[in-house]
Amino acid sequence: MRTVTRHRERASAEREVLNQILDDGMVGTLSTVTDDGMPWAVPLLYARDGDRILVHGSTGAGALRRVATGAPVAFSVTHMDAMVVAHSTFESSANYRSAVVYGVFEALSGDEQYSALDLISEHLIPGRTSEVPPMIAKEQAATLCMQLRIVEGEWVTKVRNAWSDEPKTDEHAWCGIVPMTTTYGAPQPAPWSEGQEVPESVRRLSSQTH
Amino acid sequence: MRTVTRHRERASAEREVLNQILDDGMVGTLSTVTDDGMPWAVPLLYARDGDRILVHGSTGAGALRRVATGAPVAFSVTHMDAMVVAHSTFESSANYRSAVVYGVFEALSGDEQYSALDLISEHLIPGRTSEVPPMIAKEQAATLCMQLRIVEGEWVTKVRNAWSDEPKTDEHAWCGIVPMTTTYGAPQPAPWSEGQEVPESVRRLSSQTH
Repeated sequence: MRTVTRHRERASAEREVLNQILDDGMVGTLSTVTDDGMPWAVPLLYARDGDRILVHGSTGAGALRRVATGAPVAFSVTHMDAMVVAHSTFESSANYRSAVVYGVFEALSGDEQYSALDLISEHLIPGRTSEVPPMIAKEQAATLCMQLRIVEGEWVTKVRNAWSDEPKTDEHAWCGIVPMTTTYGAPQPAPWSEGQEVPESVRRLSSQTH
Repeated sequence: MRTVTRHRERASAEREVLNQILDDGMVGTLSTVTDDGMPWAVPLLYARDGDRILVHGSTGAGALRRVATGAPVAFSVTHMDAMVVAHSTFESSANYRSAVVYGVFEALSGDEQYSALDLISEHLIPGRTSEVPPMIAKEQAATLCMQLRIVEGEWVTKVRNAWSDEPKTDEHAWCGIVPMTTTYGAPQPAPWSEGQEVPESVRRLSSQTH
């Protein structure tokens, strides 16, 4: 009984790591396989919603059309957190977090599609959907929107968060890390929005790191 | 004749874009295909050297071992440069640059391997190789190092660097961009390097954006 509980706790903790990696990212790499068995990769904006990854794109996008027909995919997200500087190049490394989710995308339509598109928008610019008019039918028709279910056993996370190995000699080169952060800069208005008040969602985005 | 020249110039300009995208990155996604025809993806540190992409990893890494046997790969690098805020969620987007290079990796050995590993180290932390002892044979033996040739017609770049579409109405929500930058923070010494002088390569890294 204790073992089962421990396993459950561990599985839950690992799933939390997956969620965090996905939630901390905005762009992932969609890898799939062509009819000829060749690898095919494209970058995609995405959002996680519970047990699914949501993506969208133009109905004209080749790779999206392909995976909409049920081609198997690997969806990957990677964050570089720090360079790891060691006493040798061999021991040098990077602190990073990566996730790969395997499965098959399902196309969304109707209300499910509208709500998924809003979820993606809200993940990328929180608060933005309430500042703009709702999506119209013509826009929805031009957008392919899909979900990839996050299924137990069908995903992998890798996390490195450590110093390099400790040198075995007294004299050695400096060891440590150099953290890396992605930050948003000051908003730049489009020519036709100069002088227009910067909205709340954009001000909030600019003030945070991602 | 003019057409040929223009094509050459254009091809050269496009290749320059590819080089810049690769040189601006440190981690890419290696996508390959399993024996069963399933997609397989892993993140990898890399460096570009002329017409090749260099990667390395432990000789125990499964995906690397697979692609060392000649499995076809797609190697992708993506940079998010800005969120593009539009008057509608449909027109919202991201400014980004991405590259995907297709081909087959070749394993490197001997002097070629030593020099490729140094090139990767120098790409990640410029100047570091001259601050640490050279790699030893035992370390080389534990490292798989491979190159992917950049061949004309076997790569794709995508670049978006623009405002959203201009709204057709006088009244509209704010449009603009929010730039995104990855920066290095202050170096943090490992416990055994506290008080030790921070080396030139690390100081330089910390003072720049990537």
